[in-house]
Amino acid sequence: MASKTPVGFIGLGNMGNPMAKNLVKHGYPVVAFDIFPEACKEFQDSGAQVMDSPADVAERADRIITMLPSSPNAVEVYTGANGILKKVKKGSLLIDSSTIDPTVSKELAKAVEKMGAVFMDAPVSGGVGAARAGNLTFMVGGVEQEFDAAKELLTCMGSNVIYCGEVGTGQAAKICNNMLLAISMIGTAEAMNLGIRLGLDPKLLAKILNMSSGRCWSSDTYNPVPGVMEGVPSANNFQGGFGTTLMAKDLGLAQITATNTKTPVPLGSLAHQIYRMMCAKGYALKDFSAVFQFLREEENL
Amino acid sequence: MASKTPVGFIGLGNMGNPMAKNLVKHGYPVVAFDIFPEACKEFQDSGAQVMDSPADVAERADRIITMLPSSPNAVEVYTGANGILKKVKKGSLLIDSSTIDPTVSKELAKAVEKMGAVFMDAPVSGGVGAARAGNLTFMVGGVEQEFDAAKELLTCMGSNVIYCGEVGTGQAAKICNNMLLAISMIGTAEAMNLGIRLGLDPKLLAKILNMSSGRCWSSDTYNPVPGVMEGVPSANNFQGGFGTTLMAKDLGLAQITATNTKTPVPLGSLAHQIYRMMCAKGYALKDFSAVFQFLREEENL
Amino acid sequence: MASKTPVGFIGLGNMGNPMAKNLVKHGYPVVAFDIFPEACKEFQDSGAQVMDSPADVAERADRIITMLPSSPNAVEVYTGANGILKKVKKGSLLIDSSTIDPTVSKELAKAVEKMGAVFMDAPVSGGVGAARAGNLTFMVGGVEQEFDAAKELLTCMGSNVIYCGEVGTGQAAKICNNMLLAISMIGTAEAMNLGIRLGLDPKLLAKILNMSSGRCWSSDTYNPVPGVMEGVPSANNFQGGFGTTLMAKDLGLAQITATNTKTPVPLGSLAHQIYRMMCAKGYALKDFSAVFQFLREEENL
Amino acid sequence: MASKTPVGFIGLGNMGNPMAKNLVKHGYPVVAFDIFPEACKEFQDSGAQVMDSPADVAERADRIITMLPSSPNAVEVYTGANGILKKVKKGSLLIDSSTIDPTVSKELAKAVEKMGAVFMDAPVSGGVGAARAGNLTFMVGGVEQEFDAAKELLTCMGSNVIYCGEVGTGQAAKICNNMLLAISMIGTAEAMNLGIRLGLDPKLLAKILNMSSGRCWSSDTYNPVPGVMEGVPSANNFQGGFGTTLMAKDLGLAQITATNTKTPVPLGSLAHQIYRMMCAKGYALKDFSAVFQFLREEENL
Repeated sequence: MASKTPVGFIGLGNMGNPMAKNLVKHGYPVVAFDIFPEACKEFQDSGAQVMDSPADVAERADRIITMLPSSPNAVEVYTGANGILKKVKKGSLLIDSSTIDPTVSKELAKAVEKMGAVFMDAPVSGGVGAARAGNLTFMVGGVEQEFDAAKELLTCMGSNVIYCGEVGTGQAAKICNNMLLAISMIGTAEAMNLGIRLGLDPKLLAKILNMSSGRCWSSDTYNPVPGVMEGVPSANNFQGGFGTTLMAKDLGLAQITATNTKTPVPLGSLAHQIYRMMCAKGYALKDFSAVFQFLREEENL
Repeated sequence: MASKTPVGFIGLGNMGNPMAKNLVKHGYPVVAFDIFPEACKEFQDSGAQVMDSPADVAERADRIITMLPSSPNAVEVYTGANGILKKVKKGSLLIDSSTIDPTVSKELAKAVEKMGAVFMDAPVSGGVGAARAGNLTFMVGGVEQEFDAAKELLTCMGSNVIYCGEVGTGQAAKICNNMLLAISMIGTAEAMNLGIRLGLDPKLLAKILNMSSGRCWSSDTYNPVPGVMEGVPSANNFQGGFGTTLMAKDLGLAQITATNTKTPVPLGSLAHQIYRMMCAKGYALKDFSAVFQFLREEENL
Repeated sequence: MASKTPVGFIGLGNMGNPMAKNLVKHGYPVVAFDIFPEACKEFQDSGAQVMDSPADVAERADRIITMLPSSPNAVEVYTGANGILKKVKKGSLLIDSSTIDPTVSKELAKAVEKMGAVFMDAPVSGGVGAARAGNLTFMVGGVEQEFDAAKELLTCMGSNVIYCGEVGTGQAAKICNNMLLAISMIGTAEAMNLGIRLGLDPKLLAKILNMSSGRCWSSDTYNPVPGVMEGVPSANNFQGGFGTTLMAKDLGLAQITATNTKTPVPLGSLAHQIYRMMCAKGYALKDFSAVFQFLREEENL
Repeated sequence: MASKTPVGFIGLGNMGNPMAKNLVKHGYPVVAFDIFPEACKEFQDSGAQVMDSPADVAERADRIITMLPSSPNAVEVYTGANGILKKVKKGSLLIDSSTIDPTVSKELAKAVEKMGAVFMDAPVSGGVGAARAGNLTFMVGGVEQEFDAAKELLTCMGSNVIYCGEVGTGQAAKICNNMLLAISMIGTAEAMNLGIRLGLDPKLLAKILNMSSGRCWSSDTYNPVPGVMEGVPSANNFQGGFGTTLMAKDLGLAQITATNTKTPVPLGSLAHQIYRMMCAKGYALKDFSAVFQFLREEENL
């Protein structure tokens, strides 16, 4: 274990922090950076080393994982004035676990390649709980020969590491899954609400859907109707889980990639609009299954 | 078996015909009616008895199953000039397996009750194949005390017979399931199409969705992308299966019940419109998973 | 004036009351009915005669106007136990100004015709203000030969009386207009909101739209953005005008007729859902242009 | 006239060619560039001067107009290896009449400003006919002091030149107008189609809408129903006019700006999807009013 070379980690937010700590647990010396000093301090206190910039991380580590909130942040961390590319070593492996526009992933990959290094996109599925437990799913895009090297690190943080294809396909897989998830969650909320108003017992209706062709993850694993299941956000006033504002962000990415590739996504597009309206109506921080509550409210004249 | 009293069966179409034959197989003497003479003749040739009208069926049998294409047909068969109610016996059990507006089911139930008989709605899930194999699912609404009597007959034709609640809730369960099915099918088609255009292999994408939160019956059991699965309509040029025009009809029912109960169903509503447009674009008789094909077509300038 | 024969009027609500009073002003002796005693009393105090039932109105008057809130009310008033048809005289002219499903209008027409009388549908455009001022628009469906007789009465209450075709086409015209109105109002709200967020001055943007191809009644006559125009609901906190709940009702009728005629109306359908959601979010009694406010709310995390 | 200094013009397509010729007609010596040699040749034959690159144009002219098909083209023409900025003179006025993402306009403006020059966005409303006739509408964004200088040139090509505000607001105004146009066109097509199926005469229905609250430019000036108006694309098999593919492009821009500003645009979003589907169904080159035809097709089983 002593022989392990340092791994860089940039972005110590809600997700990045527990991910980086899992690398430490697996014996990797981690050199980290975050723009928020508090995030750095907390991480330093846990025994890791903190750098002053992404460039400094790149100087110390030839394998770096980045976990950032949006495309512009990723661009800045890689290509900014003190970005990774200022001091990246030839042959370095740079893995971006942010969820961003796959077009941006491809641009970053080109810039990284010019410096003689390798870029892979590896967005995650699973929330903060999975990040802590180390059982995230990684969807990985990039040159296939480098996949094993990436997998060595990613398996410290996740239980599923899937190779998806060339750079950008990790993002693509994530975006497609979340678009379908958003659609089937809203569909489940609509169907449950309609059934209840037509006189059906919610638990019975969920049971019927789950043994029929309407079955989906949102109906059988994450049912949005309070009282139908235990241990899901709908059982806890829609707290925790995957925030509506994050779902709206992912649907925005789906919309942009669909627009750019001229792909019709009518339901994905409307799902985006519904989550956008929910954000404006006070649901931004509630779990995305709160769409049931949003659609359920009764008319009171 | 000789002691079994006759069972009436009205509506010998694609679904009704094999359903009635399963009753015969289980030893029930069936007295049947259909407005199309050919349908009657075929059934008669198989040894069953055919009547001249619904009223005549009601005169001979005190348990009757009806399987009709739409609300107006059901109203006519029950309350028309030669309808069941003209000659229904007190205490008869009338089971309607048509998929119709639950409001109409309730009206029929009232009319039947006035004659001293019992009405239950029991629409089915499963297509012609399931009707032949006798493994349909019945969703049953009506007075609970009569459920066992209904179940005796329905188990001859189906493997699942579910009690849903008062009259109309069978229809409600069916409509809610099919609305969610339509939504998740279109969502699956959109997600698969977007992923393919972003460079993902369709089989790999399906695998990823099916182990993630986008998983649904449409992605894991009835995938709409040719080449992903065997034995589904998408593997056979979208022939067979559940026709787009039938899905459009069920979505129309969902829309009407949602409008009447002031329930917002934005995705259900858009799904209805999409299947309506598909019907007008030549997809009426293709399986409803052909929405993948509908959305996939490339722009050619 | 003394020679004018009595005119029946059934339905003395917000719209019916001022309409009936305009008939009185034009010298017609009015015999009226409403199910709410208060509505009758107020009308009686103004000097008119009030009957005990629609049937009694039909006994006294051979020209009757009905103005009712929904299809079931209209069915009851015409065909109920004490309905018009119980005592209607041969040759009577029955004009229904309610906004209802054109299919129901046609059914009423058939029932009226069987009694040897004439039915016309004549829904109105214009709100309570126009009803008081006597400048409503009537869209009339029915036998063309009877149009002049209907027009004689309707011109007392409206400034435009348009013959639309056979029975039900008056409803059809009204429904189509209001569906387009709802769509262009939401569209105007979206465009104005987007423009404002992109840095445009609302008055300037309205001016540009109104001289360009985006121009519509909602942008140039009833602009939904507070501060752009005077004398419209948006200038008065969206009070008065045409209530969101009424627009939702009309869109429900449009949806039902579209479903029944298998007509794709994707935007009309989504507009219906949006107004339905607004009703559930506290906008039911606000003017329908409040959709600007509904869509405008900012996200606050 | 002899004293007029040269004006640069980059982009000699369907729109740019007649626009540049109008500058010539007004006595401006034009120095032009297009990446397609044929476009250059045709223009040269008409007596104008053609350069080898945008940079060369910038060397010869200190007022330049660009008219390009999309954002990447504009970025290339301004900031590419042989782009305008390579040789732009201090104090030059660069006017971009392309329809592009306002965010890109702002980025170009910053890059231009760094070179000591001035950038304005000035997208046009009106098609090829208006470009030839010189009566386009220009919506102009940029520093207000420079507006008069821009107007001097733009009035040679358009009859309306409107100052909208800071850089990007010209694009914003254009995008908002076209989004509302798309919505009201589809709405008009839906309402006309529904009315026709309900038995209304199309001309009569158009007349009723146009005197009522459903009135819009699409109903009264550019009606999409064949036979209702003369001299519009619907009277000529939807040839000419504003192509569906161009409308889809503008709606894509609206979608992207709405996504970026977190603005809900549910109808704009669905309109985008509908035009996208139309492109895939063979309507790409038809006028955008062909949505009537797209929605009208009958179901044939």
